[in-house]
Amino acid sequence: MVLCDIGNTHFHFWDNGQITHILPKHLNKHLFDQEIYYISVNKQNEKMLNKTFKTTYDLESIINLPTKYVGLGVDRKAACLCITNGVIVDAGSAITIDVVANSKHQGGYILPGLSEFIQAYGRISPALKTNINFGLEPIELPLNTKNAITYGVLKSIILTIQNTIGSQRAYFTGGDGKYLAKFFTQAIYDETLVFRGMRISIERALERRRNQK
Amino acid sequence: MVLCDIGNTHFHFWDNGQITHILPKHLNKHLFDQEIYYISVNKQNEKMLNKTFKTTYDLESIINLPTKYVGLGVDRKAACLCITNGVIVDAGSAITIDVVANSKHQGGYILPGLSEFIQAYGRISPALKTNINFGLEPIELPLNTKNAITYGVLKSIILTIQNTIGSQRAYFTGGDGKYLAKFFTQAIYDETLVFRGMRISIERALERRRNQK
Repeated sequence: MVLCDIGNTHFHFWDNGQITHILPKHLNKHLFDQEIYYISVNKQNEKMLNKTFKTTYDLESIINLPTKYVGLGVDRKAACLCITNGVIVDAGSAITIDVVANSKHQGGYILPGLSEFIQAYGRISPALKTNINFGLEPIELPLNTKNAITYGVLKSIILTIQNTIGSQRAYFTGGDGKYLAKFFTQAIYDETLVFRGMRISIERALERRRNQK
Repeated sequence: MVLCDIGNTHFHFWDNGQITHILPKHLNKHLFDQEIYYISVNKQNEKMLNKTFKTTYDLESIINLPTKYVGLGVDRKAACLCITNGVIVDAGSAITIDVVANSKHQGGYILPGLSEFIQAYGRISPALKTNINFGLEPIELPLNTKNAITYGVLKSIILTIQNTIGSQRAYFTGGDGKYLAKFFTQAIYDETLVFRGMRISIERALERRRNQK
């Protein structure tokens, strides 16, 4: 069984514990010859997956998370299914922050992902076009443009997430999850989170089917 | 005397206490018939001003602020000249935050302006294309996409600026300065800040000239 989490930038595949991140332009039918069980937050990429592979199944209808949130992304739902209490931070194209208490989703919010965040500056002025200084610890007040922008990006992300986490456990996932997790003492990095949520949902669906028989 | 603060999006004019914000496409020679003293952070807009009006003077060389910051925008310098101690928040196309202690600039950083910040989401996915919910107080965890994005934008800006301000006085200026100031108890909103810094610089330059004679 192959699992696929279709994001806005990448296809994330889970094949027997092995995770790969594929850009749409690199997707081809020779990558996998098994059935693919997927969830998707991007219609266009979803179409591409379905066109490329013969046997695919959309798991969306079996990803059930108790929540009052209207329009919660299926990947966020899947990740939240893995924990009973705590905060999920999924740092991909966007950074989503979701709070779970007693297995119920309490709400959540969205920050731009690191890449889009930094690109917003370059769109304001060519003078603000730069990359993140990954060596910077955002502690001292910056004294040049590159650090002033890196500080702005990192400090705002870190303080906002920290404000939500408080003394709770926080589970980080996504492409920038590992990098961001290092700024939080309570952080646990787990790149399998969304896939585990998908597997939990499949097992629960099978369980329900067994009970119906 | 007319003062002009040339930004990335607008020309900000000060004419005898009257402030107007003009988009580049609305700039024309009939707006003012006096000499224009300007500062600029945008080369293209600066060229346009110089082409449109006959008599213009660039004040950059007389805007002197003690700082170790390399590449500090001349508008940020001008605003900082107005205070002895405290924090300047200029919320325009970008939001700049600068700290002054004993009339010396201590450093600062940059956040995307509200408009560019919210547009970053729409670039990640059409599903995240929205406007700020200006009625939202970012306190409770959001339960829909529009609020999840508004919360992300506002909470990250507010917490980061609050972290810098601490118990200091904060002076807000710029197009979104008035809106943002209401989230801070120590905030003073002053739309004339940059212009006052320009006038202080002119007076100091005249003073120096008088002393040389």
